[in-house]
Amino acid sequence: MRDITAASAGAFGKRISDRLAELAAISDEPGRLTRLYLGPGHRNAADLVSRWMREAGMAVRIDSTGNVVGRYRGQDPGPRTLMLGSHIDTVRDAGRFDGALGVVTAIEVVAAASKAGKRYPFAIEVIAFGDEEGVRFPSTLSGAKALAGRFDLKALDEIGEDGVSRRQALLAFGCDPLRLSEEALSPEHALGYVEVHIEQGPVLEQEGLPVGVVTAIDGVTRGVVNVEGVAGHAGTVPMAMRKDALAAAAEMLIAVENRARSRPNLVATVGKIDVPGASANTIPGGARFTLDIRSPADQERLSAVNDIRELVAAIAQRRGVTAKFAVGHEVAAALCDARLSDELAATIEAMGLLPRRLPSGAGHDAMAFDKLIPFAMLFVRCRGGVSHNPAEFAAPDDIDLATRVLAGFLDRIE
Amino acid sequence: MRDITAASAGAFGKRISDRLAELAAISDEPGRLTRLYLGPGHRNAADLVSRWMREAGMAVRIDSTGNVVGRYRGQDPGPRTLMLGSHIDTVRDAGRFDGALGVVTAIEVVAAASKAGKRYPFAIEVIAFGDEEGVRFPSTLSGAKALAGRFDLKALDEIGEDGVSRRQALLAFGCDPLRLSEEALSPEHALGYVEVHIEQGPVLEQEGLPVGVVTAIDGVTRGVVNVEGVAGHAGTVPMAMRKDALAAAAEMLIAVENRARSRPNLVATVGKIDVPGASANTIPGGARFTLDIRSPADQERLSAVNDIRELVAAIAQRRGVTAKFAVGHEVAAALCDARLSDELAATIEAMGLLPRRLPSGAGHDAMAFDKLIPFAMLFVRCRGGVSHNPAEFAAPDDIDLATRVLAGFLDRIE
Repeated sequence: MRDITAASAGAFGKRISDRLAELAAISDEPGRLTRLYLGPGHRNAADLVSRWMREAGMAVRIDSTGNVVGRYRGQDPGPRTLMLGSHIDTVRDAGRFDGALGVVTAIEVVAAASKAGKRYPFAIEVIAFGDEEGVRFPSTLSGAKALAGRFDLKALDEIGEDGVSRRQALLAFGCDPLRLSEEALSPEHALGYVEVHIEQGPVLEQEGLPVGVVTAIDGVTRGVVNVEGVAGHAGTVPMAMRKDALAAAAEMLIAVENRARSRPNLVATVGKIDVPGASANTIPGGARFTLDIRSPADQERLSAVNDIRELVAAIAQRRGVTAKFAVGHEVAAALCDARLSDELAATIEAMGLLPRRLPSGAGHDAMAFDKLIPFAMLFVRCRGGVSHNPAEFAAPDDIDLATRVLAGFLDRIE
Repeated sequence: MRDITAASAGAFGKRISDRLAELAAISDEPGRLTRLYLGPGHRNAADLVSRWMREAGMAVRIDSTGNVVGRYRGQDPGPRTLMLGSHIDTVRDAGRFDGALGVVTAIEVVAAASKAGKRYPFAIEVIAFGDEEGVRFPSTLSGAKALAGRFDLKALDEIGEDGVSRRQALLAFGCDPLRLSEEALSPEHALGYVEVHIEQGPVLEQEGLPVGVVTAIDGVTRGVVNVEGVAGHAGTVPMAMRKDALAAAAEMLIAVENRARSRPNLVATVGKIDVPGASANTIPGGARFTLDIRSPADQERLSAVNDIRELVAAIAQRRGVTAKFAVGHEVAAALCDARLSDELAATIEAMGLLPRRLPSGAGHDAMAFDKLIPFAMLFVRCRGGVSHNPAEFAAPDDIDLATRVLAGFLDRIE
């Protein structure tokens, strides 16, 4: 088996960075990168990706959810398939690396193999998902869910923020919603799904590492805490007689932060806080804040949620206010496959680097395959941990290294 | 000297409560009580108050700021005058006691004296101020400032929230702004100013006392704290790497509360907090909150402001965020006159009640006379400490008692 890794050192990084720039020029809006699911940018990006896939020796189709699927056949025509990919939709005013990096990296690895006349003992399907960011419609990951046989057809009636239903948008994109249930893959033929993605966090940069292996996609509990106290005049109510809802909320925020700090990989965030009818000279009678609690271990998360519920109640009781903690939605953690992850780690180690394991605090297409087929993810360092922002950046050298890890990984899989 | 106090026990409370209801029916808006300075409600309220003053044996004029001034001459025609009163303007959707109580109480005490043919060794002027709440124009207390010779003529150019200038509004009300500087009183002839007002706080109710004697009108420092941290994804940034501006602000809020609790009569309030561009799954990159710090002792307040500035800076530094504390406006405390206050307390004690001394956390017309003439205030218990709200309530029995205290007090003054 010829080693495509060593031969292309450096070249991958430049070529992929150039292609990411080309892809980033395709947008729904002038002057900034916005590609919403099934929008005009998605259409043009899907066409460009299709061309790159064909040039890389793949047979290309766009499935009934708008996924671009390029198939590179294996040494024999059997059904065993390894899926690679990520997504090509973006948030509004996005960076060019989130999603697109994983798609272009996978295409380049296949292109290098194709150029070298190399075939693997399995087929490779490179998938460019189109519905990962969840900006346009209420639910998300429809492309990966359809492959997993988990797409709920009721979601076809969802109305997007532009007033167009998911069904209408699919039809306008040229997709046939009636064939959606036919997209489900056969788990017995799937070797797994492997995704390269920027970290979107600061851990690898902090530790001076170009890549890392994901252990799990965090489970999430979202909720809202409503605190009711008693409003009053900022001058006339002595401190000891106050039932200040905002002061109570502030104490709760600190308790939430301390609880999250007590365990590695647990994070808890209060992103929004509101005081209804606030004025500078009124003691807040009410306060409301959001909670977002994540962990790669569901037991850790649920234990933290319980503790936070009790901490909030205890603070409320001591201060003579009431607090209601309403859980919004909960998603279980999705564990990465040990074997695939170990092979990624071994490839990294063979290149003389530390195979850092870390959880993913953000969601990804891979979640849709949880407990159905094995999946693994390779994280790439990004500058300052910044994502969902035009300042998003991954260095060509890091991209080059990640691509060589992916190529080396393919050589280890059977 | 006949005792008008004992003779009228109970009757004052009923009569004043009825008159407050009559006054409350006069509003700028149907269905709720709103009387802004120099508005139609103020016009009609001034006319009704003028009639009551005349019926109480007073000579009445409306001065060039819209103050209604009723003069009840003394035993001799000399210039020595004691001023009583409060204000008849209101906030929007107000209660009927704030301000009006002090005006009607003073009129009733004079009416009782007049009915009994009683004269004091000094003239009494009952004043219904019209510009205490500061709703219409940027500055406030113009009526009391004019009497104190402290009205800044530049304020005539202030534009009210309805686009009408203070000068135009005065002219439309029938006042002559050119005569404003002639309103200044002669301090050497003024015995002082005494105001009855609802407490607007919960202290008297909490302690089961119908009235209290004010020690000082609190000084105030207002400010804004701006905290700048680093925004981030709620899932991808480990707790230890966060620079969460809202978590820092929460810790500052608790520090402010603790500092205020450390001293009696010091209060500090964070009424508003904002996280620009907040979303539930974003670590707040910025947070901004207001501060309102009050004390009857300026040294206590300034020391608290300094400590809070240091606490805020220390929290910011420890958390790797920046915080800027910008002081908005500062007003010094206005101390009530010891002799007048002692006479009020002695009158209360003579009626078998505890003469509770307490500061006023809210501002009042009396502030305008600070260090110019002696002033004192008598607080009346109000239900739940509620004010600036239609639910505002002071019981007829408490009003009756406060009126008898005022009448008894007049008998002690020479």
